[in-house]
Amino acid sequence: MRIYDLILKKRNGGILTAEEISAFIDGYVKGSIPDYQAAALCMAIFFRGMTDGETAALTDCMARSGDMIDLSRFGDLTVDKHSTGGVGDKTTLIVAPIVASLGGKVAKMSGRGLGHTGGTVDKLEAIPGMRVTMEREEFLRQVEEIGIAVIGQSGNLTPADKKLYALRDVTATVDSIPLITSSVMSKKIAAGSKSIVLDVKAGSGAFMKTPDDARILARNMVAIGKKCGRRMSALITDMNNPLGTAVGNTLEVVEAVRVLRGASKGDLYDVCVALAAEMTMLFAGVTHAEAESLVVSAIESGKAFQKMQEWVAAQGGDSAWLSSAGYGDGAALALPVLSPAHGYLSAMDTEAIGSAAVILGAGRSKKEDAIDYSAGILVHKKTGDAVEKGQVLATLYTNDAAAAEPAMKRYLNALIFSPEPPAESSLIFDIIR
Amino acid sequence: MRIYDLILKKRNGGILTAEEISAFIDGYVKGSIPDYQAAALCMAIFFRGMTDGETAALTDCMARSGDMIDLSRFGDLTVDKHSTGGVGDKTTLIVAPIVASLGGKVAKMSGRGLGHTGGTVDKLEAIPGMRVTMEREEFLRQVEEIGIAVIGQSGNLTPADKKLYALRDVTATVDSIPLITSSVMSKKIAAGSKSIVLDVKAGSGAFMKTPDDARILARNMVAIGKKCGRRMSALITDMNNPLGTAVGNTLEVVEAVRVLRGASKGDLYDVCVALAAEMTMLFAGVTHAEAESLVVSAIESGKAFQKMQEWVAAQGGDSAWLSSAGYGDGAALALPVLSPAHGYLSAMDTEAIGSAAVILGAGRSKKEDAIDYSAGILVHKKTGDAVEKGQVLATLYTNDAAAAEPAMKRYLNALIFSPEPPAESSLIFDIIR
Repeated sequence: MRIYDLILKKRNGGILTAEEISAFIDGYVKGSIPDYQAAALCMAIFFRGMTDGETAALTDCMARSGDMIDLSRFGDLTVDKHSTGGVGDKTTLIVAPIVASLGGKVAKMSGRGLGHTGGTVDKLEAIPGMRVTMEREEFLRQVEEIGIAVIGQSGNLTPADKKLYALRDVTATVDSIPLITSSVMSKKIAAGSKSIVLDVKAGSGAFMKTPDDARILARNMVAIGKKCGRRMSALITDMNNPLGTAVGNTLEVVEAVRVLRGASKGDLYDVCVALAAEMTMLFAGVTHAEAESLVVSAIESGKAFQKMQEWVAAQGGDSAWLSSAGYGDGAALALPVLSPAHGYLSAMDTEAIGSAAVILGAGRSKKEDAIDYSAGILVHKKTGDAVEKGQVLATLYTNDAAAAEPAMKRYLNALIFSPEPPAESSLIFDIIR
Repeated sequence: MRIYDLILKKRNGGILTAEEISAFIDGYVKGSIPDYQAAALCMAIFFRGMTDGETAALTDCMARSGDMIDLSRFGDLTVDKHSTGGVGDKTTLIVAPIVASLGGKVAKMSGRGLGHTGGTVDKLEAIPGMRVTMEREEFLRQVEEIGIAVIGQSGNLTPADKKLYALRDVTATVDSIPLITSSVMSKKIAAGSKSIVLDVKAGSGAFMKTPDDARILARNMVAIGKKCGRRMSALITDMNNPLGTAVGNTLEVVEAVRVLRGASKGDLYDVCVALAAEMTMLFAGVTHAEAESLVVSAIESGKAFQKMQEWVAAQGGDSAWLSSAGYGDGAALALPVLSPAHGYLSAMDTEAIGSAAVILGAGRSKKEDAIDYSAGILVHKKTGDAVEKGQVLATLYTNDAAAAEPAMKRYLNALIFSPEPPAESSLIFDIIR
């Protein structure tokens, strides 16, 4: 089997067999297939697409290219969640303890932030003492004992995806539905959970700009996950606004605690209840109504917050800090963003808001950049809100005085005002099961 | 300017500027742009195509990537011919002396054969003593003195095309009209002739299988040549049969001499007259009727054959041999191919006939292979001819007894017989000016 023939076949609209896909991935990981042939194939896939069968085969090969985490000791109770990435998305910090408090087993590997989107591992590190690396056995023991462990990606997980993603990143072949699907799902399959809930973001702060695009990706990922033997569900949720009010690591942990303690309702609460209910349905086999009621009572009873404290303590974190930390802790500067207009906030460029947070020190432009955990933004006014001229729209937190002006400018440029209120938009566009 | 942005732009259907194309070619030749990005761009071009403006810019950049041959001392008299490659195509050996005998200046660099198609340089080397390498000044002096010099490609001509073609060859991106066009035309532009006539072959022995495909390529090449300031013309000619009767190096030289001496009429004669007339129109600025009559009288007067003798002698070849050589000279074996059927020859797989000649020793499967100049095929019956069972369809010539059976099998498998005569087909499908 020659890689040339596979490129030609795909270029001409053919369907690759599982054997052909396996030969490609094996050869590419081993180095016998050069980058230039892999790049040509990726571009042909961009134009020709892949069937569900091809995507599933690619997902499976990439999942098997490295370590596979064996969670079989937990039976069908393991449940994972994946977000396609957004601004202010701290849902893992909230739904993981909720689900664990209901008997789910959350053995999760999360990523770090890059560019305008944050990463769960960075948020966890904002908690004093919290460890995000663990040996495999310790990780599994913690899941066994308290139902939850979240660490950074470790070990030799999906090396094929790592190598292929790095190539796609420099050859303009990232935004292909089957390639995105196989990249995300191969990691999830290798990570071992039986049930997987996807949070596919749509809007100005997300990779997918419209709910329709997000729906296509979500349907594809759900189909592929099912073909790989997983229980699957996907929510399409709004990313035309930052999720919740906090953007930035410590700020987001504080907001997550507020939601878990029942002190904060709104879009973040609603998305977390929906995600946690979906996860609970899958691992516990209950109806949606039952799952939702279990989730709400886990929050209201304090069980979920208690689980977060146990979790943080188990990973070396200061669980007392969770209750005492407040917005703005550790930031020398708190700068109000004042409204230049009277009327309504009619749209937010959420990606630009994420990048304003990066300017303040909350994220990384390059992988090597250091993070200021206390930096970030509290968003007081979101799309649809009435605003007065001079009213505080947001507060920027930073320790870098030089960042204040460019971040302020970036934030204000991300806002559109209008005299009339904008049309109401949905928070959860769709659920794909 | 980042190559990533160029790939993305082309992938999304954008039009690259001349500056962008120049940055790509410069960077690729220098090595600052890696193969994997060039491969992704080529595949994006395969799917999105290029405008005439983009193709002309690419052609120009590739032509300028190495040496440019300066033929300005010959004014507007220089004229070149390029065939897209076929079986039995010895037209250069015929049209070059015709045109030179009429005052045209033919300063030509030709290629060697690979696979089922032959190369002019190999055919010239079948003439005893003939040299196909020459220093630049000697080459130009010969053109000055006798109006014709044909050598192998020498010097650092179009290194960008060499590097890009080698990449396209392994990434399934060869058969893209703008990429073929820029590859062919960059070499022709660098070779310096003012007028260029293209012989675009269509049929079972050609790269383009149908006249329509050939027409698209021809129109594109003519347009690009004109944009680069050349006088252009293209013939679309039939390659559903070998051209003429001889396939193989010495055999083809003998046939070329027969045509030049007026001893052989038929498809080869007709194509050569048409090509030479087209070349004469371009360099001499005469009408088609005038050009055709000049060409015919150059053959009938013996001027054209005399020019061939001068040319061969000037390059060290044995010009007396031209008159004495006959079909089959130097081949120990002459094997008749007998018709297995009664009726009509209704189609020939010309590519397979070319590969039967390669089996006999007339060509190369790999670049390193040696050639037996005397090996080849004389084709006695072509598409449309009536045949009797047991009649000789062709004669195979070789010095390799082991080749006889596989070549015979390959030849017979290339033929289709039918009880009724096939529909008549054209020899020259179209002329694009």
